[in-house]
Amino acid sequence: MLLFVGLGLAQSPSLDAIELLKECDEIFYESYTSPVLNTDIVQKLSGYVNRNIVVAKREFVEDGRRMLDLAKKVNVALISSGDPMVATTHQELRARAINLGIETQIIHGSSILQAVAGELGLSSYSFGKVVTMVRGPVQHTPYNTVYQNLLRGLHTTILLEWDEANNFFLGPKEAISNLVEAERDLKYGIVTEQTLLFAVSGLGKRTRATLVCSSFSNVQKEEFGDPPTTLVIPGKLHFTEIEALSAIFRKSSDQFRDNSENVGRLSKQMVGKYSKKTLAALGRARVAAERAGKKYDSVFENVELYTTDSQRFLNEGREELAILSIGYAEGLLDSLRFSGELEFDW
Amino acid sequence: MLLFVGLGLAQSPSLDAIELLKECDEIFYESYTSPVLNTDIVQKLSGYVNRNIVVAKREFVEDGRRMLDLAKKVNVALISSGDPMVATTHQELRARAINLGIETQIIHGSSILQAVAGELGLSSYSFGKVVTMVRGPVQHTPYNTVYQNLLRGLHTTILLEWDEANNFFLGPKEAISNLVEAERDLKYGIVTEQTLLFAVSGLGKRTRATLVCSSFSNVQKEEFGDPPTTLVIPGKLHFTEIEALSAIFRKSSDQFRDNSENVGRLSKQMVGKYSKKTLAALGRARVAAERAGKKYDSVFENVELYTTDSQRFLNEGREELAILSIGYAEGLLDSLRFSGELEFDW
Repeated sequence: MLLFVGLGLAQSPSLDAIELLKECDEIFYESYTSPVLNTDIVQKLSGYVNRNIVVAKREFVEDGRRMLDLAKKVNVALISSGDPMVATTHQELRARAINLGIETQIIHGSSILQAVAGELGLSSYSFGKVVTMVRGPVQHTPYNTVYQNLLRGLHTTILLEWDEANNFFLGPKEAISNLVEAERDLKYGIVTEQTLLFAVSGLGKRTRATLVCSSFSNVQKEEFGDPPTTLVIPGKLHFTEIEALSAIFRKSSDQFRDNSENVGRLSKQMVGKYSKKTLAALGRARVAAERAGKKYDSVFENVELYTTDSQRFLNEGREELAILSIGYAEGLLDSLRFSGELEFDW
Repeated sequence: MLLFVGLGLAQSPSLDAIELLKECDEIFYESYTSPVLNTDIVQKLSGYVNRNIVVAKREFVEDGRRMLDLAKKVNVALISSGDPMVATTHQELRARAINLGIETQIIHGSSILQAVAGELGLSSYSFGKVVTMVRGPVQHTPYNTVYQNLLRGLHTTILLEWDEANNFFLGPKEAISNLVEAERDLKYGIVTEQTLLFAVSGLGKRTRATLVCSSFSNVQKEEFGDPPTTLVIPGKLHFTEIEALSAIFRKSSDQFRDNSENVGRLSKQMVGKYSKKTLAALGRARVAAERAGKKYDSVFENVELYTTDSQRFLNEGREELAILSIGYAEGLLDSLRFSGELEFDW
């Protein structure tokens, strides 16, 4: 049997975990997926379960053969921080075990992916896809993830790289600079000086987590506390979220802007711009028609109707229909020029 | 002080939680946010921490005044299953406590929102927004969430309603029927008979969770195990996810289809449909013009040009421009009918 035990964020075993670990013959502990909070954790765990615990390196877990060989005969456990199944290597090890006919079991643990929402007073249901940032040159993937989430008004959790072998933590300031660079490249208009961001550092430690509420322009001056830090770029904030944020950060509710508000969907810009142009051209076409003594009532009425529809569809969130309508309205009007029926400026 | 303690999915306290609870003067336990796995849990917890534990009803927690009054003077704890901060009432209680100058602390617990990914061998990074389904008539929100996630190739976790007061669990079969109805209403083409879905039931219990891999057409025949059940509609599956799924469900890798593959963006459907219609109408308009001895070469050429452009924009991923162009082409052509210039079928 192969048992995966997650110690959660506080790296503290549950009674259930202790009970199951006591039934294990071989216990391994890996620390490369999360930084260790207490250096004596292995010793303590060993005491709780009255078993020897072997510290396993990344290569040992990735290779996995020793654990799988043992698990064919005896009960083996692999302990890690957080939730054990967030790590791909653990998922792979489990799949290999199942394919070898080895029974597997998971003791889930609390995970940073879930806990940041609670710490910040944000709703778990308002988060979009999570993304990881690593050191190095400008990355478009995290920026794009934030953009895609903001288009739907959703919050984005950004996990920052941790490399145990080199004891390297990607800092929040460097990560934010990277997003600013991506904005310069891609120009979707999601990052401005006012962009609101939150950070949670030191979650799981006995001391309280360090929470930061800042804006992109102030980030370089902030104190984020000890790593690891997790960033959240919020989207549209519900009033219950704003109430919680106000309490947690002792700021008035108007300090929490909607980052998604000015993230323009192209459709919104298009409909705004083309509606204005079409209605102006319609005015000139009506004057030209009157001067020429011609009647295009049906065309003109439909141009007006479809322009109004376009705005209504946009307000209803039916963006494709909104664009189709404004395009159609333009075409109706412009056709009079192409057919040589009427001359007017567009 | 007000301490929020999450017992996690297994409803088993961590050593950290027990230590902190021992320092509490008043301890409340609420069971309305998650079903209780073991009926003697309060008695057991009471034994571990050597304190009396009061079972709190929903109204008591929502009202909160008694706990807040106590927390001004002594250490108060509120225990719940899963992660304590997923529940909005707990978030609100915490904000009220902070505003009253009461210190708060959170012991996070493992949450279904995180654990389903691990149980199913799916990557936590491939999930989009989570959504809840409740009993009642057809709901468009969950359907829309699945659609929006699938457009980005992301998986959707669907939590099903649980109502403690009436001991009611929304069943997975009813939930799926509801999605099928929403498909009939909205017709985005996300739900077909082949749509792949996963279900996880009884997570946290000592017995293994019941995992189901099915398709929408087979759902009504499946055995889902005891409630609560959580559904996952997967999006694009990474090969490491497919390897894990193959092992877990003992199915060959070709059994795990990509639900997002045929989820057409509305823009793609629109451009396809309207291009065809416009070109057909253009053909009829040309015949009608020739019969009537009229010339609209400039209009006809532009209709053709903008229809071609529309397809090109779509291929380039410039969806808004694609729709605008096909709308414009339609308008150009239709104007000839509205102005009474030409009669032809659309």
